[in-house]
Amino acid sequence: MKLALATPVIPGGIRAMTRLDQLATCSSDDGALTRLYLTPAHADAVALVRGWMEEAGMATHLDAAATLIGRYPGVHPDAPVLLLGSHIDTVRNAGRYDGSLGVIVAIEAVAALHRRGEKLPFAIEVVAFGDEEGVRFPVTLTGSRALAGTFQPGNLDATDKAGVSLRQALSDFGCDPDAVRTLGREAGRTLGYVEIHIEQGPVLEAENLPVGIVTAINGASCFKVTLTGKAGHAGTVPMGLRLDAGAAAAEMMLATELITATAGDLVATVGACEFLPGAVDAIPGSAHFTVDIRSPDDRIRNEAVATLTARFETIAARRGVKLAIEQSHDQPAARCDQRLIATLEAAVASTGLKRLRLASGASHDGLAMAGLCPIAMLFVRCKGGFSHSPAESVRIEDVSAALEVLIGFLRRLPAA
Amino acid sequence: MKLALATPVIPGGIRAMTRLDQLATCSSDDGALTRLYLTPAHADAVALVRGWMEEAGMATHLDAAATLIGRYPGVHPDAPVLLLGSHIDTVRNAGRYDGSLGVIVAIEAVAALHRRGEKLPFAIEVVAFGDEEGVRFPVTLTGSRALAGTFQPGNLDATDKAGVSLRQALSDFGCDPDAVRTLGREAGRTLGYVEIHIEQGPVLEAENLPVGIVTAINGASCFKVTLTGKAGHAGTVPMGLRLDAGAAAAEMMLATELITATAGDLVATVGACEFLPGAVDAIPGSAHFTVDIRSPDDRIRNEAVATLTARFETIAARRGVKLAIEQSHDQPAARCDQRLIATLEAAVASTGLKRLRLASGASHDGLAMAGLCPIAMLFVRCKGGFSHSPAESVRIEDVSAALEVLIGFLRRLPAA
Repeated sequence: MKLALATPVIPGGIRAMTRLDQLATCSSDDGALTRLYLTPAHADAVALVRGWMEEAGMATHLDAAATLIGRYPGVHPDAPVLLLGSHIDTVRNAGRYDGSLGVIVAIEAVAALHRRGEKLPFAIEVVAFGDEEGVRFPVTLTGSRALAGTFQPGNLDATDKAGVSLRQALSDFGCDPDAVRTLGREAGRTLGYVEIHIEQGPVLEAENLPVGIVTAINGASCFKVTLTGKAGHAGTVPMGLRLDAGAAAAEMMLATELITATAGDLVATVGACEFLPGAVDAIPGSAHFTVDIRSPDDRIRNEAVATLTARFETIAARRGVKLAIEQSHDQPAARCDQRLIATLEAAVASTGLKRLRLASGASHDGLAMAGLCPIAMLFVRCKGGFSHSPAESVRIEDVSAALEVLIGFLRRLPAA
Repeated sequence: MKLALATPVIPGGIRAMTRLDQLATCSSDDGALTRLYLTPAHADAVALVRGWMEEAGMATHLDAAATLIGRYPGVHPDAPVLLLGSHIDTVRNAGRYDGSLGVIVAIEAVAALHRRGEKLPFAIEVVAFGDEEGVRFPVTLTGSRALAGTFQPGNLDATDKAGVSLRQALSDFGCDPDAVRTLGREAGRTLGYVEIHIEQGPVLEAENLPVGIVTAINGASCFKVTLTGKAGHAGTVPMGLRLDAGAAAAEMMLATELITATAGDLVATVGACEFLPGAVDAIPGSAHFTVDIRSPDDRIRNEAVATLTARFETIAARRGVKLAIEQSHDQPAARCDQRLIATLEAAVASTGLKRLRLASGASHDGLAMAGLCPIAMLFVRCKGGFSHSPAESVRIEDVSAALEVLIGFLRRLPAA
């Protein structure tokens, strides 16, 4: 166990934790946190967060995509804008920190400036996006894509399980669906987008550090592999006469793990696997499994996918098994901006903490925002790497550290 | 493609095929063959087969375990008994040859002797067992175990899905359940048990042979492997911090296939496999899979199980994954008798066919009968190795060959 560095608790950290607990009461479920986009629970959260933004000296408005925005002006009325924030929607039976932490800490940072009457050479807008998790509708990043100018108007026709369209839900929420396409910001006037988020992984815990600086939101390739061999009786078919789809799958799944040896940050996962007919005494006639490959470097990821596909083809050919690969997802990485990273690192160093860079394996609003402006993320250690679960947990010391780093970052960031 | 040897169709072969079609009409399902133990369909089959037995010169009776027995006397009233036969129950949506073929061909062989008034130095009893498939009750080989004297009276309390006990079902079928335990034959007066059966595998088809002589009913070890690692997000957990139960399973499943390289007749199958939670973007926190290992040689099978278990332990320890192995089945092999094999081989040779020995990967009534007397089996080629399916198919030429071999065998077999 490495020695923990001293990270003092500060009043803003205590208030942030208290507010995160309060915000967790805005839920559709009794005894569990579920806050989907454009639901009454979302409206409750908007009301609560709006109050805290105004208390911190921000002028607020809800945009057409139901993103709550609090604006803290800069020294000049025409100063460029720095966007801070995250999302306030959750998965079902969620934890209270994924998303919300980034909004609440951003408000605390602005509050710290506001208390001293401190104005910066840029305006700050704290954004609380409403649709990062993509749980209610089969679309995601609605708020951030709107700001980035990449919202697809066709998404308004997406419907939830009850048949309610996104268009209708926005309208019912008091938003103008036809105005979503007009929300795109001016790139030249947007300094950047900076998000604080729980890590959702175990790296900071393993390194015994409260915060880490994200290098990129990893690109991801997901595909489903289907193998067709020949089913048979487990007792009566000699090994040499088999076309065992399950054994072929096992060899490919192991190759999937091994492909990661080619690059440090590359991760590859077989999350699901099934053999059919699936009986103890039956040779699998078919098998399918999923592959999820991620890397901060698109070249490395694409090379890994190509190499792995070639290995699958070799294995299938050698075994006489039919191979089908169906790609379900191909998302390029979003690299974080080197200048923003350097400024975050300077802020981390000034708190006396060790600087650590790490990639984000999960997706975030920054993926959309990277289409508009430079992005950066600061990760906060979370217990056991748990997220999307009530087991999500952060330490008040770590939230305090993140707040200090963010304030230090704001003070160090030049306006151009 | 090897050249097919000429195997002429004989009248007994034609009659056997016609009767197998007739017998297939005794079914509980319209348009499909399902004939479970002690059902009305079973009673219909008993009536039909009883008629054919009597027509072939046999005195018939239904024993207490609902095995239909036809006796064809030997030259002396106190001659020893040779048992021929198979089972007339089926799986659900079955083929028409698994089991029934062995009963019908045995009747044809006796009919051939009877037509010429030919008596042998032993009596022949053709047995049509009622419970080989074990589908209705959670017990199996009831008829053959009864003859072998190994029937467990506790099995009478086993119940089917409707809650009917085996005791009640026997009683309703006109049998005396309490007499099942008295059916055990005298070993010294039982020459052997010989069964003709479809191969249920692809070996004879690959060898282009109508029949093959079984060396042993393979022993089988079945177990379920459960691995417990740590679930996590497929994007956020670096490879070095994973305890991936799925990757561990893949390595073990591949090792299961490789273990068969140690011995020619050894087969190993992973029939079922599941990863949990089972999502594309989730590292499996647990995984389970089944293993089925069979060999005609118990020493080889037991060694393979021990070696594989040790490999699983090594893999689990190296990966930090928890391993649990739960054995569900451990059945020793039943070796076929060398003298009966030699007599069958002489009969095969006299028909001009190539002699081929092969192991039986599937289980049969011989497994129980081996506890009483020497056993032997003759396999008949079946199309594509299909069984337990309406796709089961045999050629009339091959059934004719099997009948000729059986008649030749009976004429060659000495009484002691």
